[in-house]
Amino acid sequence: MLVEKYKIDQFNHEILNDHKRKFEFVASSVKNVEEILQKLVDFQIAIPSWALGTGGTRFGRFAGGGEPRSLEEKIEDIGLLHKLNNCSGAISLHIPWDIPTNSNNIKALAAQHGIRFDAMNSNTFQDQAGQEWSYKYGSMQHIDKGVRRQAIEHNIEVIKYGIELGSESLTVWLADGSNFPGQLNMRKAFQNTLESLQEVYAELPDNWKMFVEYKAFEPNFYSTTVGDWGQSFLYASKLGPKAYTLVDLGHHLPNANIEQIVALLLMEEKLGGFHFNDSKYSDDDLTVGSINPYQLFLIFKELVEGMDARGMNHASDLGWMIDASHNVKDPLEDLLQSVEAIMIAYAQALLVDAKELEAAQLANDVVRAQEILQGAYRTDVRPLIAEARLRGGAALEPLNLYRQLKVRENLIKERGLKTVATGL
Amino acid sequence: MLVEKYKIDQFNHEILNDHKRKFEFVASSVKNVEEILQKLVDFQIAIPSWALGTGGTRFGRFAGGGEPRSLEEKIEDIGLLHKLNNCSGAISLHIPWDIPTNSNNIKALAAQHGIRFDAMNSNTFQDQAGQEWSYKYGSMQHIDKGVRRQAIEHNIEVIKYGIELGSESLTVWLADGSNFPGQLNMRKAFQNTLESLQEVYAELPDNWKMFVEYKAFEPNFYSTTVGDWGQSFLYASKLGPKAYTLVDLGHHLPNANIEQIVALLLMEEKLGGFHFNDSKYSDDDLTVGSINPYQLFLIFKELVEGMDARGMNHASDLGWMIDASHNVKDPLEDLLQSVEAIMIAYAQALLVDAKELEAAQLANDVVRAQEILQGAYRTDVRPLIAEARLRGGAALEPLNLYRQLKVRENLIKERGLKTVATGL
Amino acid sequence: MLVEKYKIDQFNHEILNDHKRKFEFVASSVKNVEEILQKLVDFQIAIPSWALGTGGTRFGRFAGGGEPRSLEEKIEDIGLLHKLNNCSGAISLHIPWDIPTNSNNIKALAAQHGIRFDAMNSNTFQDQAGQEWSYKYGSMQHIDKGVRRQAIEHNIEVIKYGIELGSESLTVWLADGSNFPGQLNMRKAFQNTLESLQEVYAELPDNWKMFVEYKAFEPNFYSTTVGDWGQSFLYASKLGPKAYTLVDLGHHLPNANIEQIVALLLMEEKLGGFHFNDSKYSDDDLTVGSINPYQLFLIFKELVEGMDARGMNHASDLGWMIDASHNVKDPLEDLLQSVEAIMIAYAQALLVDAKELEAAQLANDVVRAQEILQGAYRTDVRPLIAEARLRGGAALEPLNLYRQLKVRENLIKERGLKTVATGL
Amino acid sequence: MLVEKYKIDQFNHEILNDHKRKFEFVASSVKNVEEILQKLVDFQIAIPSWALGTGGTRFGRFAGGGEPRSLEEKIEDIGLLHKLNNCSGAISLHIPWDIPTNSNNIKALAAQHGIRFDAMNSNTFQDQAGQEWSYKYGSMQHIDKGVRRQAIEHNIEVIKYGIELGSESLTVWLADGSNFPGQLNMRKAFQNTLESLQEVYAELPDNWKMFVEYKAFEPNFYSTTVGDWGQSFLYASKLGPKAYTLVDLGHHLPNANIEQIVALLLMEEKLGGFHFNDSKYSDDDLTVGSINPYQLFLIFKELVEGMDARGMNHASDLGWMIDASHNVKDPLEDLLQSVEAIMIAYAQALLVDAKELEAAQLANDVVRAQEILQGAYRTDVRPLIAEARLRGGAALEPLNLYRQLKVRENLIKERGLKTVATGL
Repeated sequence: MLVEKYKIDQFNHEILNDHKRKFEFVASSVKNVEEILQKLVDFQIAIPSWALGTGGTRFGRFAGGGEPRSLEEKIEDIGLLHKLNNCSGAISLHIPWDIPTNSNNIKALAAQHGIRFDAMNSNTFQDQAGQEWSYKYGSMQHIDKGVRRQAIEHNIEVIKYGIELGSESLTVWLADGSNFPGQLNMRKAFQNTLESLQEVYAELPDNWKMFVEYKAFEPNFYSTTVGDWGQSFLYASKLGPKAYTLVDLGHHLPNANIEQIVALLLMEEKLGGFHFNDSKYSDDDLTVGSINPYQLFLIFKELVEGMDARGMNHASDLGWMIDASHNVKDPLEDLLQSVEAIMIAYAQALLVDAKELEAAQLANDVVRAQEILQGAYRTDVRPLIAEARLRGGAALEPLNLYRQLKVRENLIKERGLKTVATGL
Repeated sequence: MLVEKYKIDQFNHEILNDHKRKFEFVASSVKNVEEILQKLVDFQIAIPSWALGTGGTRFGRFAGGGEPRSLEEKIEDIGLLHKLNNCSGAISLHIPWDIPTNSNNIKALAAQHGIRFDAMNSNTFQDQAGQEWSYKYGSMQHIDKGVRRQAIEHNIEVIKYGIELGSESLTVWLADGSNFPGQLNMRKAFQNTLESLQEVYAELPDNWKMFVEYKAFEPNFYSTTVGDWGQSFLYASKLGPKAYTLVDLGHHLPNANIEQIVALLLMEEKLGGFHFNDSKYSDDDLTVGSINPYQLFLIFKELVEGMDARGMNHASDLGWMIDASHNVKDPLEDLLQSVEAIMIAYAQALLVDAKELEAAQLANDVVRAQEILQGAYRTDVRPLIAEARLRGGAALEPLNLYRQLKVRENLIKERGLKTVATGL
Repeated sequence: MLVEKYKIDQFNHEILNDHKRKFEFVASSVKNVEEILQKLVDFQIAIPSWALGTGGTRFGRFAGGGEPRSLEEKIEDIGLLHKLNNCSGAISLHIPWDIPTNSNNIKALAAQHGIRFDAMNSNTFQDQAGQEWSYKYGSMQHIDKGVRRQAIEHNIEVIKYGIELGSESLTVWLADGSNFPGQLNMRKAFQNTLESLQEVYAELPDNWKMFVEYKAFEPNFYSTTVGDWGQSFLYASKLGPKAYTLVDLGHHLPNANIEQIVALLLMEEKLGGFHFNDSKYSDDDLTVGSINPYQLFLIFKELVEGMDARGMNHASDLGWMIDASHNVKDPLEDLLQSVEAIMIAYAQALLVDAKELEAAQLANDVVRAQEILQGAYRTDVRPLIAEARLRGGAALEPLNLYRQLKVRENLIKERGLKTVATGL
Repeated sequence: MLVEKYKIDQFNHEILNDHKRKFEFVASSVKNVEEILQKLVDFQIAIPSWALGTGGTRFGRFAGGGEPRSLEEKIEDIGLLHKLNNCSGAISLHIPWDIPTNSNNIKALAAQHGIRFDAMNSNTFQDQAGQEWSYKYGSMQHIDKGVRRQAIEHNIEVIKYGIELGSESLTVWLADGSNFPGQLNMRKAFQNTLESLQEVYAELPDNWKMFVEYKAFEPNFYSTTVGDWGQSFLYASKLGPKAYTLVDLGHHLPNANIEQIVALLLMEEKLGGFHFNDSKYSDDDLTVGSINPYQLFLIFKELVEGMDARGMNHASDLGWMIDASHNVKDPLEDLLQSVEAIMIAYAQALLVDAKELEAAQLANDVVRAQEILQGAYRTDVRPLIAEARLRGGAALEPLNLYRQLKVRENLIKERGLKTVATGL
């Protein structure tokens, strides 16, 4: 389904006055509003190809309708999102779910939608039909060289697809670990994994990055071979300058201070990027900002402060990706909410007066420091985000327009009610 | 230290225009703004007497200056807070830390400051000098009848002090429990505790409530005899209609859904009140709203919805108390921040359109339900709170005025730098 | 595959002397050894039909070979386990996965293997082909009466199958809950669920029990409508004397004191039974006793003490079931390990000298209480379990015999390598 | 109080036959029993000086009687423990609580009791009387150079005391961190801390080690500047080859896999030592092995395997210390239980057949791997520990002898009922 530009303009036109009033109100209390707006216009969040269909749990999956049946339709879906919000201009592919049959055609289609190819994702946590070795007992950690070799070659293959499409990074998430004490020698598992990663690393083009993602548990329930930021950092350090840690918000033990992890990884120049989502209990993969939006703000506050301290480019020097799963929501609506939550947290973080905060810190004025942070957080920045969208040619209220245009109903008409997107 | 009314007026006058502009902006998008303002004016949060001094941990305590040295000075401190924000019009006393030498004088002093006596707190978790029996192995759960008797009589004494002062509720927090498996028979501990509580309950005046507070752990680290809402509910049910559960936000296991507990207790007519604070790891006793303000909003959303469903009075039908401890902040500043956070969450909850939310729920429109909640939450309601304060004769910006008036410096001058408030 | 009795005898014969030596050593320090042995002989643990195949996670499933392809083969598998260990004499069925085509034949087959039909399990967390209503937004909590009606009727149907087979209890585990704040009205969800359960309860035969299972989270990740023991207790109390709480060890928040929950439910006469497993992070469904065997012992210590206090029959007055999932183990071997772990914990709990423990408790002798518990726990009771098996005609070392007989290899020969058991 | 050797012999004599019978039973199934016994004889666990008095919580402290009133009496208490169990031959001092007035006298006294001086502990988490700067806002992380300088000099002073006494390591536990978001710049806090540690490191004698202890939370409740093993590892790596990570079992987030952390730190040659204790919820400081003894065994399994892989000496190449707090137990009895639990876990770990385990791992035989671990764990090794004690001239049953000799009663007679040991 294609959303014509004039429909967006029409939609915006009707609510423009109200928007202007709100925007001016907020803008009047923001010092560097133009600078902030430009940063918001530039900021893009990659949509993972597997988030376009309804997710599920081990207990079941309740499919929706109109889900994309091919890589082409996935790109179209993201193109639609991007048209609506102007900040979803990238796709993160998962191999083998998204193997392009013709890379040039796919690239052309993406370009047409203004979509870039963000990090490529490999999959060694499931067995594919016809696969020689099983990943039942791990992939890169496996005691058997054959399994490790297969996992290495799969990752190299993913890099090749990525090169063809113009991606410049590889995300390696390993489900490797163990379910029971004694199942594996944890030192050897680490060594095997490291050596396997090194072989993949050797195949990375010069301009590529490798993201080593960590996860505390699931699908393994006793130990995880890349289990926390410390382990990921060890791998990334031993691998070399192109290797970085990737932080998925849902991959931590209860109560972890994620913003501190982010700050330290930035300090060590080893933060690579993010998988955004939200959670209450474990890797719940809920909509970004739906459970603890203040934590998201605090993470962005560390990001802005830490990136600025290094002179990094907010928009391009880290990988910004969503990794959520939508069991009870329309996946596209959910992605619109997730992107909005990220933009809000980013805008709030941009509002923090770094100099004032530093002054409060240097005076041990804890009360004032909290006032500064919460002052930014409590500001209703939605009109800023809307203005940035407006300037980028997108919709003032993407979700409302999505519903007004009856996008899902149209997709169901086009694709049918009983589609199941490839992926999880 | 006394804050004269004209100073507040003067302070307000200088920022009034800016406030009016902000208030009108917010008010223009709120349907029932006058009704909400009235509710905000009426809402009062009790300040616990022990929160007026610097808190500590088992590792140490770093006292501040100018802390209140007597019950009279505690009342003066709360009077000062109440003058500044018009929503701290109650004090929650702790016996034996706050035994009044002359109840009539104390009542008169409180009345002069517009302060009500909220729930009385007993203490059977520490041994007092000259006490016959030790609480080392518990109080109401104790195997020894003498200890239980002492704990019962102490609570009855607390009720008597409360009656003299005009309080109408007793909060019983028991540290009872065990540190090691096998230390106690958990059924017998429950029975002893129940029987002890029954003896106290029998002494409650007709118009009194008993709040049974639960806590998952600390200072006992294996089991707690009133450990969760389920246990508190059992006690309260067996005790009778005057017994209720009290929810302290920091007293749960990691990831607990506190708002659901609140909803269920309201449903069962057994919710008595709150100890507000915030925490990241355990019973951290941090400033309300400093770690997870969205959770606080969700709790208030359940409160407003659940109380309205029963026709309850927001201001008077539940006990609203703060229970925080201020290790690195000026205690009075911290209380101003805590009260502000509660008012914000309450105001946001009042903004939720109950009818629209119900409609979304009845349509299983999860996306819309989230939009409604977050729409209210993302609204910058600070001008509403400020307007309510203004109408109540208090300061538009209490914390700023507090600093401008150099309250702490004055208190230190009056009371000295090396004071230690009674209590924790 | 059938294990002939003579093979067991032969196997036992070869290691009998060694066993006798070990048994006599342990027995010499146990006061009431014959009484304990009899209790061990009588104790039976139900095997859930869905644990006979390889489990999986939402990330994938790595099937094993020789898995049962029908209810008949499931009963044969449990018959085999029971022959080996003489303490798996019951099966817990799951409808619709295990609908018997001919109940009489199934009963005859079970009887032949000495297998009883334990609690029946209903399933309203997945949509079945051809089902009128979807459980996407819950079952008994659902806003739509049609869905609730369907869930009720399914449960009544499950009772009917159970009556035919001679079962006497129904386990209701509801996945109902919500993924996002605002998704549902938690009070109404409770009320709908209660009313639905009441309709099922009304259909229970007089000699039946209904087990209301609770779970903190998953597959719903914000709230769960039967989320903790407190909620389950509320339902069970409102339903009536035939309703009980079922405790699954993996269904708690981090650090929960499960043994205390068990003690309190026993005290309130509302403990119905168990789903045994073990976990480190969440509902990991690992082999019983594989992560925290001391906790399992402490639970059994409460069970033995609490049941004895009420004069309950250990073997028959509670429902003892396993609920584990075997992703990286042969399911039958895993069940042998799980049953062994339960028997060990039970035997250790029987060794606790209740009088001595009470004396220590009455003296607040915490050190001694710990010595008593750990003295029992550190005793190597494996020879007691083995002796109980020997007296019951089973194998001294079930797992070793299982491997010696090459059971899995034989099952693969009989059933094929690429079987997938029905169920999760 | 002095325990004469003949009393131990007398005590042992009476239960020797029973011991021999049990020992022979266990020994008969252990391959390398003499080798294991020698390792058990050699193994020594340092007792922290602050564990000899009754601990407390922020809610109160219930002192016991007969607590040591001086460093001399602390050494005597540990001498007594060591006499009873022959495996507490070291003391870990805490400055300023244990400043020796005359080092030579103290050394002589310790030598007389066979006590070595293990790691010295510094204290920058409390303000001492007369101290120039306050640690209210941290010590080595502090924004103010004066505070950092004071903390550095204190640590250097602790090293000097240690040199005098013959200690060879310094444990640095920093309570540094923050209670509220925004309170500090986490990168700068890290840098300040690193630079401060570097200044202390520069003063370490060549044969000394520095242990950098981490802790997830408490007394700071938002962030901790040495918060997890990853951060400690970063510091230790940047500091140099004499710096190591120290693992305190209670200093982790819920559900952390501590044994994996241990394995990885050993792999990286950065594991320095342990603070043993046990906990259920947070840093509960409970008796070692009282809550989760299997976890303790799994940690020792990793230690034995990992140290053997590097050819390390179990007894001397890591620092073995207890760090527990005894609120409801006689501190000396509690230490006897803690040491016993450590010895049991160590002995069980020594029983694991490394070759068999490796074979199981190389076959992905998860069931067998678990059998091997649990086979060792379920073995009742208490007679092995007792035999090792016997050979070392200590008591077969230290706790029973302690009680028979009425040690506590005698200490109370000597020292009085109302003593309060220095320290926490």
